[in-house]
Amino acid sequence: MRQGLWGLVRSGVYNRQLFRQDATAALIVSLLLIPQSLAYALLAGLPLQAGLYASILPAIVYAFFGTSGVLAVGPVAITSLLTFSALSPLALPGSDEYVLLAILLALMSGVCLLLMSALRMGFLANFLSHPVMSAFVSGAAIMILLGQLKGVTGIPVQGANLPDQLISFYYGLDQLHLKTLGIGLVFLVFLYWSRNYLVSLLKKLGFGQSNAALLARMAPLVLLVVATLAIGLSGLDEQGIKIVGKLPLQPPSIEWQSIQPATLVTLLPMAMMISLIGFAESVAIARTFAAKRRQQVNSNRELLGLGAANLVAGLSASLPVTGGLSRSVLNNDAGAITPMASLLTGLAMGLILLFFTGWLYYLPQAMLSAVIIIAVLSLIEWRQLPYLWHYSREDAWAWLVTLLGVLFLGLELGLLLGVLVSLAAWLAKNSRPHMAVVGLVPGTEHYRNVQRYKVEVHPAILSLRIDESLMFANAQEVEQQILKEVTLHSQLRHVILMGSGINHIDASGVEMLAQLNGLLDEQGVYLHLSEIKGPVLDKLKLIKFIEALSGEVFLTQHQAVQTLIKTETSKRCLIKY
Amino acid sequence: MRQGLWGLVRSGVYNRQLFRQDATAALIVSLLLIPQSLAYALLAGLPLQAGLYASILPAIVYAFFGTSGVLAVGPVAITSLLTFSALSPLALPGSDEYVLLAILLALMSGVCLLLMSALRMGFLANFLSHPVMSAFVSGAAIMILLGQLKGVTGIPVQGANLPDQLISFYYGLDQLHLKTLGIGLVFLVFLYWSRNYLVSLLKKLGFGQSNAALLARMAPLVLLVVATLAIGLSGLDEQGIKIVGKLPLQPPSIEWQSIQPATLVTLLPMAMMISLIGFAESVAIARTFAAKRRQQVNSNRELLGLGAANLVAGLSASLPVTGGLSRSVLNNDAGAITPMASLLTGLAMGLILLFFTGWLYYLPQAMLSAVIIIAVLSLIEWRQLPYLWHYSREDAWAWLVTLLGVLFLGLELGLLLGVLVSLAAWLAKNSRPHMAVVGLVPGTEHYRNVQRYKVEVHPAILSLRIDESLMFANAQEVEQQILKEVTLHSQLRHVILMGSGINHIDASGVEMLAQLNGLLDEQGVYLHLSEIKGPVLDKLKLIKFIEALSGEVFLTQHQAVQTLIKTETSKRCLIKY
Repeated sequence: MRQGLWGLVRSGVYNRQLFRQDATAALIVSLLLIPQSLAYALLAGLPLQAGLYASILPAIVYAFFGTSGVLAVGPVAITSLLTFSALSPLALPGSDEYVLLAILLALMSGVCLLLMSALRMGFLANFLSHPVMSAFVSGAAIMILLGQLKGVTGIPVQGANLPDQLISFYYGLDQLHLKTLGIGLVFLVFLYWSRNYLVSLLKKLGFGQSNAALLARMAPLVLLVVATLAIGLSGLDEQGIKIVGKLPLQPPSIEWQSIQPATLVTLLPMAMMISLIGFAESVAIARTFAAKRRQQVNSNRELLGLGAANLVAGLSASLPVTGGLSRSVLNNDAGAITPMASLLTGLAMGLILLFFTGWLYYLPQAMLSAVIIIAVLSLIEWRQLPYLWHYSREDAWAWLVTLLGVLFLGLELGLLLGVLVSLAAWLAKNSRPHMAVVGLVPGTEHYRNVQRYKVEVHPAILSLRIDESLMFANAQEVEQQILKEVTLHSQLRHVILMGSGINHIDASGVEMLAQLNGLLDEQGVYLHLSEIKGPVLDKLKLIKFIEALSGEVFLTQHQAVQTLIKTETSKRCLIKY
Repeated sequence: MRQGLWGLVRSGVYNRQLFRQDATAALIVSLLLIPQSLAYALLAGLPLQAGLYASILPAIVYAFFGTSGVLAVGPVAITSLLTFSALSPLALPGSDEYVLLAILLALMSGVCLLLMSALRMGFLANFLSHPVMSAFVSGAAIMILLGQLKGVTGIPVQGANLPDQLISFYYGLDQLHLKTLGIGLVFLVFLYWSRNYLVSLLKKLGFGQSNAALLARMAPLVLLVVATLAIGLSGLDEQGIKIVGKLPLQPPSIEWQSIQPATLVTLLPMAMMISLIGFAESVAIARTFAAKRRQQVNSNRELLGLGAANLVAGLSASLPVTGGLSRSVLNNDAGAITPMASLLTGLAMGLILLFFTGWLYYLPQAMLSAVIIIAVLSLIEWRQLPYLWHYSREDAWAWLVTLLGVLFLGLELGLLLGVLVSLAAWLAKNSRPHMAVVGLVPGTEHYRNVQRYKVEVHPAILSLRIDESLMFANAQEVEQQILKEVTLHSQLRHVILMGSGINHIDASGVEMLAQLNGLLDEQGVYLHLSEIKGPVLDKLKLIKFIEALSGEVFLTQHQAVQTLIKTETSKRCLIKY
């Protein structure tokens, strides 16, 4: 849906049938959100109820400003980790100061996203290449996984990079809590099994594909009920098994006057990073679902929706939010059609916060850690590396550098390094242009590489296809290659540059062409252009380059060769007679 | 000549005729080198004889390792300014410590160049785009010009950026020395006139074009002789006109043990910058002259030659050197053919240093400043800005940012900023891909933009030409544009992506194509590719993308459309009957 919820309701398109579908989806998503929201608050180092707060107003506000009918906005693993990574060096996780910083971070992310929307800077997310995002998420997932080992073993795992985490795990081995490990393993095995094998079991039991998939996704909720009851009845919480305990309804009182301007400056880069990564993830999810429905996503509207969601996340004393993949998939599978589903999810979470948090008292924290671990396991994309290595070394390097950067240098530096490597890799590719001498495929009007096809060439004419835009990083190289090719042909009178692969010519490229034109002219060789694209030709005309050219500009390569052969033949005749 | 001097002599190609030409050129270049080498030492803040040292061994060594028969290696305005800018914050110009730092800088530049040669990293110079180099040289020229005002006015002008220089000029106005100003103006006017009008005057007097040009270039030498005699005879040096004075033969004794490792670290970035810029300038000059003679320049051999030249420049107690444009032009015009000319120039400068420096005693320093000012005036390329603005806004911004950066932030930051802006501009261009719906030009096999040409299209087939490589910065945009175009065509059965402008597809691009293929497939639309370039197709085959494609890959766009129209027609027929 391109219009937000407001336009939808006012336009009268919205009907009871749509509402029934959205409400069903909202109910199902809310049930999954209970363990997930608590788990992601735990991951972010915040009091658990902050996760619930983050699932109420942001989802409601997104419904009014965002455009996706499927995107489930709330706390998400990666943004929670980024929050923890930003704040844990500044304050003690769980403390009032820490909560205040998280609120600030959410507010600042909201402002960043709104600014990006106002300045139409959504394109910035495009600079996070696929390999870099994949490696960043994989690296973050590994760090999340290690961090959550504490919940299922009792061993504290701390540190902002892999070596620190491993060392802290090693020195904490003596704090292993066997009962926690026991129930942790049970949870992990059950969640892993239900994620990977439950659907096929349910299908064997006679459920349809879609029902089986929905039921299997509810497995964490079943586990939550069973685990809570089991702990409550067995009294295991008195034997060192950590439980959720009492979740206060009231948000903490915030001392706004204690905020230092320096704190804002410190938080700014992290807020920008959370905004950018959160937006990139959200918009990718929203686009995938929109495309399935032949719809379009408006980046700037999404920025607006996410920005508003983060602002209210801050105002409701929680943490930065964004669109999450697993809940969006569930939302879609459960039949959500319009942003009304998001609104209803938010309302349902509000009811849960008001009336049902008492029921979560005996929920073991090990269950939350297990939920996180199983969720992030699927984010680690090991197979990307051999795949990328096979397809493109440059992309493989970008992936590897990003992953190692994240694991050893931390999230921010890792991402920055990855972006730089992918930029450099792209320029390196551009700087080694592919060029081919082409000739006529006999019986056609097509010109192909002389090394790949059997083609006809004329000794006085050299046709060169340049498979690259002409720009500063390759202008010298292109000129050298052309001049080298020219020295190999002694009878040469004409050089035709076939520009079907030239998408841009920057100022350095024009400079090179002008110099080449002059150099060939001194040798009595004419320079011609063919198949130059409209926009490129327009620009060359602007600076009167075409008039300075010793030769001509032809619409097609065939036309160029035919015309020049005629000229050469008539000249020979003149000489003969 | 591709081989160095050594190979040339051994191969027996070298003969008396070639030697006579080289020797003539060497003599002429040496005469011009006398004022220039002193002037560039002055500019670098070094004792004047350092300029002479820099013209001897480096030229001789370059002859053995370099490949250009024309490139005149020695002290050059830009590298001298870079030297001054690097060293003046570290030591008092002219002091022993300063001389030592200059020697270190030359040695380190030599090592950098040799490393670049060994690692085949000459391509790095390609990342200095034409606008960035033009603006950098223009900015440096302005700063040199202002700095040399002292020599022709007596007013001290100091500072590493334009505001500082202007302020110091303002506060030094009371130190204006009228006699210096008087002879300075005479020199400036004479040099400017001889540079711009002397050739045509000489031609009117009956000289041929080439002789007139050569004679006109000797004007500084005539001025040198006249000025030296005039000062010596008039005794003006006793009235505050600064003269060159006694030039000691002996290089200073160097206290190697006084070098701190920290100094080396401080000098490293500047040494790298001097290497890169010096190399970029030299290789551009060498390539231009080589191309005129249908020869090639080997970047790595040039790096070796310049590296060796800088090493010996350091060892002979002078400053970083590189190939200079004005002397190379003179060398070429005077008939230099092989690197022997460079060897002979070095030897001639050695003789001058040994026997003739006494003759320079009365040479006024104002003359040296005037030589510098007139030389750098032609380096300021104001006209680039309107030209670039007209042709390409991105390039114009890169030029302007570099110039302002150099003038207000200093040489290093200015260059860095310019490089970053040109990289960003290139990516921004790549991220806004040009795409066109194409149709058949009636009566031909050519497909052109439906908005620019009258063409035929089939309602079930959408042909889209993508005029850009598919990469991370534009993959999302391309996908959105294609999906948007698809929603506009209701009868659509086939989408053909015409890849004549796709030079690369990176991993993000492949990911996008795979996703697009799946999304179109769900809508019952086949995705086909046409005119995909060989190297791109090879890579797509590597990862079995072609097998996953719902449609087919066609060699040409025409073939694709013809085949698909037949399929569609036969299907319709089946439905009809």
